[in-house]
Amino acid sequence: MFKQLGLIGCGLIGGSFALALKEAGLVGRVCGFSATQQSMGLAKQLGVIDDLCTSASSAVDGSDLVLIAIPVQAIEGCLREIADHIGDGCLVMDVGSTKGNIADAAKAFLGDRFSQFVPTHPIAGKELVGVAHANAGLFKDRPLILTPLQETRADLIERAHRVWTLVGSKVHQMTPHDHDIAFAAVSHLPHLIAFAFMNALINQSAHEEFLSVAGPGFRDFSRIAGSDPKVWRDIFFANRSNLKEQITNFKRELEAVEQFIETQDSSALIKYIETSQVTRNGWTINS
Amino acid sequence: MFKQLGLIGCGLIGGSFALALKEAGLVGRVCGFSATQQSMGLAKQLGVIDDLCTSASSAVDGSDLVLIAIPVQAIEGCLREIADHIGDGCLVMDVGSTKGNIADAAKAFLGDRFSQFVPTHPIAGKELVGVAHANAGLFKDRPLILTPLQETRADLIERAHRVWTLVGSKVHQMTPHDHDIAFAAVSHLPHLIAFAFMNALINQSAHEEFLSVAGPGFRDFSRIAGSDPKVWRDIFFANRSNLKEQITNFKRELEAVEQFIETQDSSALIKYIETSQVTRNGWTINS
Repeated sequence: MFKQLGLIGCGLIGGSFALALKEAGLVGRVCGFSATQQSMGLAKQLGVIDDLCTSASSAVDGSDLVLIAIPVQAIEGCLREIADHIGDGCLVMDVGSTKGNIADAAKAFLGDRFSQFVPTHPIAGKELVGVAHANAGLFKDRPLILTPLQETRADLIERAHRVWTLVGSKVHQMTPHDHDIAFAAVSHLPHLIAFAFMNALINQSAHEEFLSVAGPGFRDFSRIAGSDPKVWRDIFFANRSNLKEQITNFKRELEAVEQFIETQDSSALIKYIETSQVTRNGWTINS
Repeated sequence: MFKQLGLIGCGLIGGSFALALKEAGLVGRVCGFSATQQSMGLAKQLGVIDDLCTSASSAVDGSDLVLIAIPVQAIEGCLREIADHIGDGCLVMDVGSTKGNIADAAKAFLGDRFSQFVPTHPIAGKELVGVAHANAGLFKDRPLILTPLQETRADLIERAHRVWTLVGSKVHQMTPHDHDIAFAAVSHLPHLIAFAFMNALINQSAHEEFLSVAGPGFRDFSRIAGSDPKVWRDIFFANRSNLKEQITNFKRELEAVEQFIETQDSSALIKYIETSQVTRNGWTINS
């Protein structure tokens, strides 16, 4: 399907994508570049990439597929650097967790090649970082969001759709704008809440005793409170207006349930919890 | 160790306790009572109980160990009913998720037998309900809190400690007051937040699209949003003053992190998330 993948960022996501393409026989060669020599060397050693490149642009040269799998705040500089190296039929994708800001940067810096860029967001667990944890099955049965723009070439949207489907993803398509609202609601707000919850706990002098008796509910609820600070700072900054709206919604609901408890409004509280229970228990991750 | 367990409430927790005692050879007979004939019949069929009783008090007659494993709001009536049936050396425990209110009810209704009552809280997953899910290993390696009072007999606290240790629990001891503060912090607040979060999501017209792209972070964070309405109404009402204080702490932290995002205070936000990350990733459930 592809002659050459130019992989910019040889970490968990980029490395897993390269391995998945190789396993499915979808790519001839993988030319990889990482900011650190160490992860590039490890990627080569693990068979994730075939060639080590000295720059992002040299990984793009001659590639008919480019995946930018680096932290969000580095993507803008990367797009600027590679713009003149993207070939005619080349499909370019990123894997950032916010899409509006990246689509804007691509529009500003890719010039004529903007129509070849499909902003992409694979929903895959990211607790483990680094190419050492890369695996070909990372995207299997997991949602993946394509957020093409009006200007994006239909043939390249189609190619993006196909390649992700072939590595096992459940492909969704929405605008960058709708993507960022949806993820503010189902991902960014939960992370923000989890961080605030942990800080509120830690600020209490007896928190070690509290933690010693915490059970499986706490474990699951707070798992995302252990996420990476830089990644989440970038996401919160990039998507702050949508996040702010979600926080406002959430605080309104918090006030409502506080009121039910304060006034001991049993039937309202039961109905409130039931609404939550029914929707949550009716949800499954692979829908 | 015990001649006869009087089991009041043959559900997941009560049934698992009976099975654990039997497996460890700690009990001669189990006399069970449930509000519904159906769960009692099933408990007998599954070998969880040996005798079916027609009332809570008849399950207590002749027992040297009594476990009250029924919804919190039914415990007060139960204590009142069984008070005159508790024998001299009998150890009585409940398994409610709040302890201050139950200790108060026991003091009010058990009279002379109050010194034989050890309020207890096993921390075990409660998503699955009913005796059909009961298993002898439910308490293994899980925290269990004993909250005896000043009046509680030392020999019976010791017996309670021993029996739970023998079924595999990690036994902690604290006052009912400290228990209720700790659980407001690590359990009741997370549940309240999860319910409010789900309601905030559902109130948005695009929530079905949002849910279709939600990933593993959402899955774990919101799992407790699927919990039982009546159970949680009772807990929220019973522990409302401690819960209110935890909500206040949490809202203060939410305001703080909102401010960091609003002002794009990168270093404060990084530090805030790091605090959460370090504590959460340093925590393990069996500590």
